[in-house]
Parts: sequence; structure tokens; C-alpha cells
Amino acid sequence: MLRSCLARLRTLGALRGPRGGARPPATDTGPALRLLSSEEVILKDYSVPNPSWSKDLRLLYDQYMKKCEDGSWKRLPSYRDVAVQETEDFKNFFHDSKLIKEEQMPQARVFIRSYEDGLGFEFVMFHNDVEKKTVCLFQGGPYLQGLSGWLHGGAMATMIDITSGMAASIGERIVTANLNIDFKRPVPLYSVVVINSQLYKAEGRKLFVSCDVRSVDGKTLYAEATSLFVKLDPEKSST
Amino acid sequence: MLRSCLARLRTLGALRGPRGGARPPATDTGPALRLLSSEEVILKDYSVPNPSWSKDLRLLYDQYMKKCEDGSWKRLPSYRDVAVQETEDFKNFFHDSKLIKEEQMPQARVFIRSYEDGLGFEFVMFHNDVEKKTVCLFQGGPYLQGLSGWLHGGAMATMIDITSGMAASIGERIVTANLNIDFKRPVPLYSVVVINSQLYKAEGRKLFVSCDVRSVDGKTLYAEATSLFVKLDPEKSST
Repeated sequence: MLRSCLARLRTLGALRGPRGGARPPATDTGPALRLLSSEEVILKDYSVPNPSWSKDLRLLYDQYMKKCEDGSWKRLPSYRDVAVQETEDFKNFFHDSKLIKEEQMPQARVFIRSYEDGLGFEFVMFHNDVEKKTVCLFQGGPYLQGLSGWLHGGAMATMIDITSGMAASIGERIVTANLNIDFKRPVPLYSVVVINSQLYKAEGRKLFVSCDVRSVDGKTLYAEATSLFVKLDPEKSST
Repeated sequence: MLRSCLARLRTLGALRGPRGGARPPATDTGPALRLLSSEEVILKDYSVPNPSWSKDLRLLYDQYMKKCEDGSWKRLPSYRDVAVQETEDFKNFFHDSKLIKEEQMPQARVFIRSYEDGLGFEFVMFHNDVEKKTVCLFQGGPYLQGLSGWLHGGAMATMIDITSGMAASIGERIVTANLNIDFKRPVPLYSVVVINSQLYKAEGRKLFVSCDVRSVDGKTLYAEATSLFVKLDPEKSST
């Protein structure tokens, strides 16, 4: 029962390996359910507007929601929680790795959803399956600061990893094998950027993704990146 | 007065550009002072043990503090705040960039010190100036989760960027130009890893750093990376 429920939850982009946090539910219109034993949990979807979103972010969100109407694009919900089964799959692959103790797990949060609204990573992702593209609309909050007034490069790297991973992971269990980022310009804190990623090559279990980060008007290039993701294959574990 | 005070604060590794957060004070034994107009602020140094530190992290910390006794290694304090003057330098370089509004700045925190003790990035860095090495002892807390029980790859990328930047930045204002990471194995949440970085080449304003991330016993390789940092030169701004 747990497996079949999770199977329904695991649709487009559900299983991204270690860089999770965005995992679409069975439908894209309501909250996702998660079953643990007899307990039913309603997962909050954080990829929807909240009062901290700027006008730029809301306008872009509306534009992409419009693109979703004909089914060519899909909004990808994201949660603060990750499914137990995904972890088991991953543990089986890296079977010498040690997991944390059971009692430590309730405190854990998905990194990119670990802050309260508006303080950290505010974002929503949209995926186009035909074009193999994922777009992330991202607003970096005040707790993601590098130098005073600027977004930290590590926060930018995190969002590039996540967005690129989503372009690669649709329907696949994957891990990031390589992430190569050219930082072109610093991103002002609180500003909105558009992260465009595209799966451009697949060779066996290897998935190659390109990515760029631009201002809302597209005129300023903040970063470019390439990344390599590898599909997990339980028959060929790493050890 | 502000500049001279800040100059005293800006010693080893003080000015790292956009990936800041670790900035040694005038001495390595007490809290750092910061002057803003007539206000004197005592900055809390977060690179010291707190109750969330595991036995592994405390033991490693003690080992490196021992290495500091002959002056070959130095502990690098780090703060939640960043100095205004550093931002001005950076703004001058990227002079078309927009900073956030004055009223938004008080809420901002340095990303890698934005969580309460034990929840996020727990770390301390040590630098060896003769060998051009920086070592970071890092414990990832429960808010840095990727898949359940594992550290998020973006959090790992952040710490690699920070540690590599410290190896490159000693006495220099720099920005990260490229970050290229090979992820070898996922890192269990709450575990301690050792991040070793080394400045191996300098060509004009370009600084090249190598880095690896290993388990405490050195046997498990979690990640390898190379990175390129560029010294800021106010005479040659980017626009």
C-alpha cells in the first residue's frame, strides 16, 4: 500500500536522488497525500505565491501558469518532506553508507525549503516534457546573503543544481555526478532571476544538462552551467 | 575611522567577494569589533564549538587548534554579518548592479551562518599560509537535507565554494568565476567531513584552487572540485 501510494506520488520528476525537494503529486491541483502506516499526512506545496513574493515573481508565475493551460508546461510542486521509499532506493545503491538515526529524522527539512516564507529560497519550477526543459523562477531572500546586499554563490549553485536535476530526472532516479558553473555577475539579494535548464544529451545512464541564469528581462546573464546526472541502477550499485 | 577600523578587521582572508561569511578579526582570540558611525558592535564568532558539535568535530577541532600553537595554522573566525566597506568595494566593481534597499538590510544574514546552532552549516576553517591550504571541518545539520538522511548537494557545493575561496582569498578581494565539482558519494546528514583546499596556481588576477571532501578517517572520498577565482581590480571594472 505504501509503495503503490508512493508510486502515484512519484510522477513527473519525483525521484531526483540526493538533491530533492520538488516532487509532483498525483495531480497538480491539490495538496499531496503521504501514507506512513495508518497515518495520513497532507503535504504543503510551497511552489505557490505567498506574501513575500515580489511583483516580478508573481507576474512571471502568472505567465507560466498560462503556458500550463494547454498542457505543454507543468508546474512542479515542492515540499519540505521527502518520501521514505526514495531514501530506501538510494540507500540500496550506496549500500555502505550510514543513514541517520530514526530519532534524528523528524527534525530534518529539505534544504531548499528549510526557511520560513520569504527568508530563503522562494521559487517555483515549470517543466516542458516535449522540449526537455525546466524553468525555475527564483527569488533569493535575506538569509541567502553573500556580501551585504548580494546573493551567496552557494545559494545560486544550489538552485542551478536543483533546476538542472529536474530537467534530467523526469521519471528517473538520478544523482548529480558533475556540476560546472561559470559565475558571470553577482545577483542582488531579493531580486528575481530566471533559471533555464535543458536536457541536451542522454548516453546510457548519463544525462547531460545545460543551464543559464538571467534577469527577468533576459538582458543580464548571471551564470551558465553544465551538469552531468547519472541514473541509479540497483543492479549496478557503486560498491 | 571606519576604513582604518575595517582595515584592522580585514586581515587574513577577510575579503572574499560574494561568498563571504568568514572574516578574521584583528586578533584570533576575542570577538571582533565593528564600527558603524558612533555605534560599536561586538560580532559573535561562530567558528567555535557549540553543544551541537559531534565528538568527531570536537576532536578534529582540538587537533587543528594544536597545529595553531606554532603559528603554522590559523583558525579563521566567521560571522553572521558582513562589513559595509566590503560591499562598497564590490558595488564599485559591478557598478551597474542594484543593491537592496537600506531598510531591507537589517534582516539579512550571511547564508552559511543563517541557521540557529546545530540546524545548518556547522563548521570551522583553518588556514596555512605557507602551504596555501585551507581546511574546513564541516558538520551538516538537519535543515541541509537532500533525500531523507542525506546532505543536499547544494549545501556541499556551498561549503566547497567557501573553503576554496578562503584558500584563494588571503589578503585579496576576489569573486568565484568557476566552480567545477565531481560528486563521488552522498554525505550522510549529521556526519562530519573534512574539506581540503589548496591554491595551486596564480596567473595575473586568476587564482586556481583544488579541493576534495573526505570522511574523518580520510578513507571515503565524497567530492573533488577545481575552482577559479578572480581578484577584483577597481581599475578594470566589469562594465
